[in-house]
Amino acid sequence: MKVNFSERVSKYDFQGEFLDIILKAAADPSLTSFAGGLPNQGAFPTEKVREAANKVFDTMGYRALQYNAAEGYRPLREKIAARYKKTMGLDYTADEVIVTTGSQQALDMFSACLLNERDQMIVENPSYLAALQVFHHYNPDIQAVDLLEDGIDTEQLAEVVKNGDPKFLYMIPNFQNPTGLTYSEETRAKVAEILKGTNTLVLEDNPYGEIRFAGTQGNSLAYYLPEQTALIGTFSKIVAPGMRVGWIATKNKELLEKFAVFKSSMDLHTSILDQMIINQYLEDNDLDEQIVGAVELYKNKATKMMECMDKYLPEEVSFTRPQGGMFLWATMPEGIKAVDVQFEAIKAGVVILAGDPFYEYDREVRTMRLNYSVATDEQIENGIKILGDVIRKMMAEKK
Amino acid sequence: MKVNFSERVSKYDFQGEFLDIILKAAADPSLTSFAGGLPNQGAFPTEKVREAANKVFDTMGYRALQYNAAEGYRPLREKIAARYKKTMGLDYTADEVIVTTGSQQALDMFSACLLNERDQMIVENPSYLAALQVFHHYNPDIQAVDLLEDGIDTEQLAEVVKNGDPKFLYMIPNFQNPTGLTYSEETRAKVAEILKGTNTLVLEDNPYGEIRFAGTQGNSLAYYLPEQTALIGTFSKIVAPGMRVGWIATKNKELLEKFAVFKSSMDLHTSILDQMIINQYLEDNDLDEQIVGAVELYKNKATKMMECMDKYLPEEVSFTRPQGGMFLWATMPEGIKAVDVQFEAIKAGVVILAGDPFYEYDREVRTMRLNYSVATDEQIENGIKILGDVIRKMMAEKK
Repeated sequence: MKVNFSERVSKYDFQGEFLDIILKAAADPSLTSFAGGLPNQGAFPTEKVREAANKVFDTMGYRALQYNAAEGYRPLREKIAARYKKTMGLDYTADEVIVTTGSQQALDMFSACLLNERDQMIVENPSYLAALQVFHHYNPDIQAVDLLEDGIDTEQLAEVVKNGDPKFLYMIPNFQNPTGLTYSEETRAKVAEILKGTNTLVLEDNPYGEIRFAGTQGNSLAYYLPEQTALIGTFSKIVAPGMRVGWIATKNKELLEKFAVFKSSMDLHTSILDQMIINQYLEDNDLDEQIVGAVELYKNKATKMMECMDKYLPEEVSFTRPQGGMFLWATMPEGIKAVDVQFEAIKAGVVILAGDPFYEYDREVRTMRLNYSVATDEQIENGIKILGDVIRKMMAEKK
Repeated sequence: MKVNFSERVSKYDFQGEFLDIILKAAADPSLTSFAGGLPNQGAFPTEKVREAANKVFDTMGYRALQYNAAEGYRPLREKIAARYKKTMGLDYTADEVIVTTGSQQALDMFSACLLNERDQMIVENPSYLAALQVFHHYNPDIQAVDLLEDGIDTEQLAEVVKNGDPKFLYMIPNFQNPTGLTYSEETRAKVAEILKGTNTLVLEDNPYGEIRFAGTQGNSLAYYLPEQTALIGTFSKIVAPGMRVGWIATKNKELLEKFAVFKSSMDLHTSILDQMIINQYLEDNDLDEQIVGAVELYKNKATKMMECMDKYLPEEVSFTRPQGGMFLWATMPEGIKAVDVQFEAIKAGVVILAGDPFYEYDREVRTMRLNYSVATDEQIENGIKILGDVIRKMMAEKK
């Protein structure tokens, strides 16, 4: 028999194919990989999560194993709301937070509730590749607006908004994946000004926001456009990713109502055991203290990688200097394609991720993503040294 | 601002609205509810799950909290495959099983990978309402084929398959939700015969299959049509539902490949902590023994409810006598609408679920679903007695 798949899964999946090849290569333990995006397990509060789990079984018993509400576990929603107040000065109530099975599900849910085929939407160029993959399932008209050093290109953005009717702008304003870039306050205010009074929503993703080791916290778009913005968040980078607990928060009542119903159709609800464990963990521990440890770890890794890049890469290679998060973004000299560097680097024992899959349209780009969160200091030192040699050799051959 | 939602969430959601009203009523603790579908918490192996959780933290440490593979935790996939061999004589390998966030997500994933708008598909009439809700998001042409005492009406089914090109048949062959009905072996074989050689897939959902208290296990459609069938399963009814661990199993390689990629876009993967806990639980305990306890509990509840229905309901009311599962299905006498009974019963302190939301097209039907899994024996006795009085009164008023 022949399976007649839906169009949404029959299209060529550039992002998926690209990633598949690289991650298979990266799985070879003899290689040094800067290609992935795993949080460092050294930052996981494993023993405290275990204690929280036991306390949940003590106090909740069978209720930790029974069906629960689609919107999520209320004490956890309260804590997420309270944390927005503390870290970003934003006022949310528990009712304005819906727990999702990781932030990936929040991306999918938001897209499903907003996008008809050929609807316009805006992404940063480049953007998070797993978000691009989700958006593709809804076959929208994706407008890719360049990301500059201080945030999205507001002139391009204004043009796109003026000439179309985009459903939403997907943005990662802090330590973006893949670039590590952060929006300036001026750019944030300007984006708000452009979108104010339009029907374009803001979908603000902020997985790394609390992993800051330099600079200061800018305002969320929710500060400027509270009713027009939905925030996506996750415990993956501040507690641990494997339990798949994320959320979406918004003051827009229409959105909340649709999300609650749609969430139920996706998986009824997110694991109540995991929600209760994270809630208990937050109750019994100081999250700020936990985050201090993670920030210290990532800061040291980022510093080490930047030092090695200064030391070992040709000066023609430029790169971003992130204030937080897990990634930095390097640009090769004119004439050197990142996919070629990726190919040669694997042969030399190092895996990096060429920028191509992070772009909706651009191919054979000169940019690449480097992840510093999991490699050891020795791996960073040796790996970047090898990468420098590879690039230098390619530059020499070009001449 | 005005949110312009996608068409998929803008359509009137009959099932959702209906359920919302009833479940809100059922939340009133002064009422006796037969409207829900919760497994009985008395059957949850809570203490053993806790022991499994501790063992997972002992042996896996941080790996229970790190990202993992989209397809699911391999030792768990092996156990799911082995259980198919043991309980149904079906040969699956771990590679042919993909773990999902509850079986609800498997329904959504299968639909997303198969259905374009207006594609034909087939459901039993009536069918599981949360499945209908998911299907509606893909706007297919739903063909509802009547469910008879011994399974789907094969004459109608043959007509539909002959005259169209349905992508798949969604069926629940054992103790169906909502009716409690089970397919005879003859009907199973006949369905296979009708679909053999066509491009119509079978999506066989079997959440209650192991909760059998009478009769014998029939063959899965996967026995007759291995390459053409996908099986959906869940730990919700045999271990506990709150962890949201389900699966889809198929021998069709094309399907498996698409599912693995699509699953990743939905939520990256199902909670690895929950997968490891269930895997450990299965390793250290005899699942058959656990199921014996659950079956005993449900058998007693079902027997009690059937006895009370025989005793208290007018003889003009007929009902199914399930061989397992959590539901039975009653048909009111000519002229009595189930929604009217539902309304009057709530006023008298009892919540039942009128059959309407389980049908794709039929409304103001005479059928209703009764859940027996969570009520106490006293609640069953008193609740069915009240229901009998309500129906009798309505019958008298009709005369």
